[in-house]
Amino acid sequence: MTCSILSIGDELLIGQVVNTNASWLGDQLTSLGITVAAIINIGDDRGLIAREIERLASTNDLLIISGGLGPTHDDLTREAICDLLGCQLRIDEEQLRRIEQRFAERGLPINERSIRQAAIPESCRTIANNYGSAPGLSFTLGACRAYALPGVPMELKGIFGDEIIAEIAPEADTIERQTLLMFGLTESALADQLQELNTLLGDGLTLAYLPAFGGIRLRAMRNGSKDNAEERFKKLVEGIATLSARWIVSTRHETMAAAVGALLHERGLTIAVAESCTGGTVGMLLTETPGSSAYFLGGVISYANSLKQGMLGVAESDLQQHGAVSQQVAIAMARGVRQRTGSDLAVAVTGIAGPDGGSPEKPVGTVWIAAVSSTRTIVERFQLGREREVVRARAAHLALWLVQRLVVESEEEIVG
Amino acid sequence: MTCSILSIGDELLIGQVVNTNASWLGDQLTSLGITVAAIINIGDDRGLIAREIERLASTNDLLIISGGLGPTHDDLTREAICDLLGCQLRIDEEQLRRIEQRFAERGLPINERSIRQAAIPESCRTIANNYGSAPGLSFTLGACRAYALPGVPMELKGIFGDEIIAEIAPEADTIERQTLLMFGLTESALADQLQELNTLLGDGLTLAYLPAFGGIRLRAMRNGSKDNAEERFKKLVEGIATLSARWIVSTRHETMAAAVGALLHERGLTIAVAESCTGGTVGMLLTETPGSSAYFLGGVISYANSLKQGMLGVAESDLQQHGAVSQQVAIAMARGVRQRTGSDLAVAVTGIAGPDGGSPEKPVGTVWIAAVSSTRTIVERFQLGREREVVRARAAHLALWLVQRLVVESEEEIVG
Repeated sequence: MTCSILSIGDELLIGQVVNTNASWLGDQLTSLGITVAAIINIGDDRGLIAREIERLASTNDLLIISGGLGPTHDDLTREAICDLLGCQLRIDEEQLRRIEQRFAERGLPINERSIRQAAIPESCRTIANNYGSAPGLSFTLGACRAYALPGVPMELKGIFGDEIIAEIAPEADTIERQTLLMFGLTESALADQLQELNTLLGDGLTLAYLPAFGGIRLRAMRNGSKDNAEERFKKLVEGIATLSARWIVSTRHETMAAAVGALLHERGLTIAVAESCTGGTVGMLLTETPGSSAYFLGGVISYANSLKQGMLGVAESDLQQHGAVSQQVAIAMARGVRQRTGSDLAVAVTGIAGPDGGSPEKPVGTVWIAAVSSTRTIVERFQLGREREVVRARAAHLALWLVQRLVVESEEEIVG
Repeated sequence: MTCSILSIGDELLIGQVVNTNASWLGDQLTSLGITVAAIINIGDDRGLIAREIERLASTNDLLIISGGLGPTHDDLTREAICDLLGCQLRIDEEQLRRIEQRFAERGLPINERSIRQAAIPESCRTIANNYGSAPGLSFTLGACRAYALPGVPMELKGIFGDEIIAEIAPEADTIERQTLLMFGLTESALADQLQELNTLLGDGLTLAYLPAFGGIRLRAMRNGSKDNAEERFKKLVEGIATLSARWIVSTRHETMAAAVGALLHERGLTIAVAESCTGGTVGMLLTETPGSSAYFLGGVISYANSLKQGMLGVAESDLQQHGAVSQQVAIAMARGVRQRTGSDLAVAVTGIAGPDGGSPEKPVGTVWIAAVSSTRTIVERFQLGREREVVRARAAHLALWLVQRLVVESEEEIVG
């Protein structure tokens, strides 16, 4: 089954909103074994919306449309569907009642604009929206089944999960997938390591390299059963686990922070963070995962040096002698937050995110990270480039990686 | 001038990577007065890449292609361009030398895979990449000028800024834009407030509502000079400033965190944060802005209650009596971090992000935020819905809003 995603909204084209909806849908559809052929973003243009739906419906079995179902004058999806299907809008009494009730519950006055969201193209079936005012819509065009959802992420995800998965899942092809999150080596080096496995690929078996700040995500996917595909899939996954064992962070479909959190939770360990240049990013990443309170105590954002001293006990002499961005201060920050919070482990990040602050000895992108436990210290210096957001994001993920190594390598030492 | 953006990569379709490149390009192009008609994401499929380039080139003056220029077997953009233009790949000696030098500088061994990145379609002009191995490519197809850039964000942004803007800018239409970042009211309510201005719109003048966690971004845009468009643009912007003055956070093209940071910097004020459920998000947002060290000292991530007591001095009796998510604890956290860091202002966030932790009196989404100065306290309770990531993101932005109000309303009181 082939699917395309059509995201409607000027805000996407001018770069004011990043298309996280499409990424979420792509992930959901792929998990169901549905091949996502394309993601299209267009603006709030009634004629273009109708033309694009028609074009995509001619080459896809499934079309997920999002956006343009809101209450303002630039929300035109309903009208475009009417133009395309040759039908009229009618006010749906049930929808109107639901909208009136939503507004009443929140003590907000309803207005004509919101009533517009109860208007449904006659040729569409409505799909319940338990998260907002605009109902989803469903229709067929030729051999293509199409759904139109609100662009508000929570509403889109809610409706998709509640109503649409059940309708489309039975028709998805049977596949097998394995994801491996790798960290600590370049894409090119990893590709070299796994080169001998390339002979297994093809005829329904693919291996994709999907880089992100949190490392490289390998995605092995079997689609169909031609030519011993099941056996080749097994050999591929085992091969990766053997050839690149050292760099595997997780074999689950989770972020690096979730993987590290799961490891800490499994081992019954708590952690605290001391962050300078990352400003709270490490804490933010760790707390994205529900249940992180089981292992994450919190920490200190010691952006100013006065806080490194006052809240973490970093010695003024260390700051004077070595500077805030140094091995000594990184270790002192980590030990300081561990001691003050009572955590089992701690990780500290101190660096120069840029664009200012660099020097010949410590250029922009210089970051020291220290991970400490009661018995071990791992401390490393990294050069993370010249772009502020990249330096911060990479530093935060490297901090998570050092924590993972701190836990796993301790056990290797004890065992080995 | 009309432009489309073609982003190539399986990782985009399966939702493993969000298409921030396209959003960034959309923003850049729109700033130049170029209309972005569509953003297309497709997979690493050689035939489809060629077909989509051909299709988009027939309806656009400009086409920006990203992705598929890397060193692995699924990087196929060069080959697809050759198929389309009917030319061959040739190794460019200059590019090869640059790649060898890049690897030598970093002390990394070069491999055959990376040498592939020096192969150029004969009909393309190369564009210097000072940030990575793969050069950009430029070619024309019919009346369309096309550029192919690496998908690595830093490289794409670097090449676009260094080389491409200068080539495409002179041809952009003359426009006028004004952005206003609004916070504290719903899109629907804002639309009602501004209703009388709708008569100004049309004939080259548009007003877009672009919601995001940081509020609603209004974008007034004039494209051309028909029918007193310049005069109408001026009336529109002045009208918004008059009718909705109370909710304007910024009139610059900046995030809420940057706007609040600029306000603090302007007033010579410093700030510290005390974060519980947001886990470091507020600090992360504030430190995204270069130069934030002028006003941001840092703070405490008091995820566990023990840290609220130990690091912020929150009284155990308050925690017992009112609970961690309460007005009293929010104020105590804010005052505690202000006192311990010596900052002028402080903001604290404590809430239930979910999915667990809710109760009838304090359901998931209950968040208390307190903003304090030496003379004033603003403290409010919010109900932010049931979705963890939404609760956290909205809470972080509301925290910034309360800081803004703390500063601005103080001045209003003194003046008024």
